[in-house]
Amino acid sequence: MEERLQRQLEFALTIDKEKNIFRQTHLSGHGRNENDAEHAWHMAVMAYLLREYANEKVDIAKVMLMCLIHDIVEIEAGDTYAYDTENLMTQKAREDAAKEKLYSILPEDQKREFIALFDEFEAYETPEAKFAHTMDNLQPLLLNNSNGGGDWKEHQVSAEQVYGRQTRSREGSERLFEVIDTILQENIKKGSLKA
Amino acid sequence: MEERLQRQLEFALTIDKEKNIFRQTHLSGHGRNENDAEHAWHMAVMAYLLREYANEKVDIAKVMLMCLIHDIVEIEAGDTYAYDTENLMTQKAREDAAKEKLYSILPEDQKREFIALFDEFEAYETPEAKFAHTMDNLQPLLLNNSNGGGDWKEHQVSAEQVYGRQTRSREGSERLFEVIDTILQENIKKGSLKA
Repeated sequence: MEERLQRQLEFALTIDKEKNIFRQTHLSGHGRNENDAEHAWHMAVMAYLLREYANEKVDIAKVMLMCLIHDIVEIEAGDTYAYDTENLMTQKAREDAAKEKLYSILPEDQKREFIALFDEFEAYETPEAKFAHTMDNLQPLLLNNSNGGGDWKEHQVSAEQVYGRQTRSREGSERLFEVIDTILQENIKKGSLKA
Repeated sequence: MEERLQRQLEFALTIDKEKNIFRQTHLSGHGRNENDAEHAWHMAVMAYLLREYANEKVDIAKVMLMCLIHDIVEIEAGDTYAYDTENLMTQKAREDAAKEKLYSILPEDQKREFIALFDEFEAYETPEAKFAHTMDNLQPLLLNNSNGGGDWKEHQVSAEQVYGRQTRSREGSERLFEVIDTILQENIKKGSLKA
C-alpha cells in the first residue's frame, strides 16, 4: 500500500481513542459522562441545524469540520474542564505538543490543513470559528440544563465563571446567546448556579 | 421563544440519546462496544480525510452530514447488526416509523431536508450516498481488524456474509475496496473469519 494511504488509515485508527476522553458534562436523562467524540458529533449536527442563527454568513462545511476535529488533541493532552483554572494555564502548551504529534501521522498536506483548521478554531476570529465556539458552549449547556444544572452544582461553579465563558458565545450568534442567557438566569433563580 | 427555535433545540436535545445506542463493534485496544454517535463522528472525519478516493466527485459537506445523521433513526428503531438476518427483515419498517416520529420534532422545512438526506443515503444511488456507505463499512472494519477480528469471531460471521455487505463498498471507492479486500483476506488466512 502506498505510504500516503497508510498514513491516512493510521490516523483514522488513532483518532478512535477520542472516544475514551471523558468530559465533565453528563448525558441527558442523568446519564454517564460524555466523551469527546460524542460531543464533537453533537456540535457538528447542531451547527448545521442552527446555522441560520450565525451572526455572519458561514461556510457550514468548514464549521462542521472544525467541530469534528477540535478535540482530537485531547487524545494526547487530556480534557481540560472549562472552569479548572490550574489546568487551563498549561492547556495551550499541552495541546500544541499533542497537535504536532497527532497530525504528524498524516501526509504533510493534510497535516498542514488540519492544523490550520484547528488553529483557526482556537484563534476565535473568523465567522466559522466563532460559530463553532458557540456550539462548543451551547451543546454542554443544553445537556447540563436538562439535568437540572447538576454539572455546575458538582463543581460549585458560579454564574460569574459561566458568564465569563458563555459571553463570547454572542460573537458567533446573538440569538443563541439570548437562549443561553435565559437558561443561565433560570438556573440562577433555581439555585443550580451560584449568583 | 419562537416555535421554530424551540423545535430545533428540542431536536438537538433528543438526538443526545443516540449516544446510548450501542453497536456490535468494539473500540480499538479491545475496548467497549461503540455507540452510534461515536460511529457517526468517526465516519464523518474519515469521509473528509479519504475523500480523494471517492470514485466520483462528491459534495463532501453532504457526505459528512449524511454520515452524521444516518443513524438517528436508531434512537427509536434500535441498532440492527449487519449480519442479523431476522432483524434485518423488519429494519426498514422500524426505521420508517422512527424517521417520521423523530424528524417531526423539527420545523417542517428541516424535517423535509433531513428526511430527504436520510432517504438519499438509504437509496444508495448518488455518489455521496455510495461514498458514505463505504465509510459505514470501512470504519467498523478498521476497528474490528485492529482487535484481531474479534467481532466476527464473536458472531461466527463467515467471509461470504462479510463480502456480501462489503462488496458494495466498491461502488463508493474502488481503491478503498481494495484495502477492505486485503484486510478480509488477511483475516481469512488468520482464521478470524470463516472461509
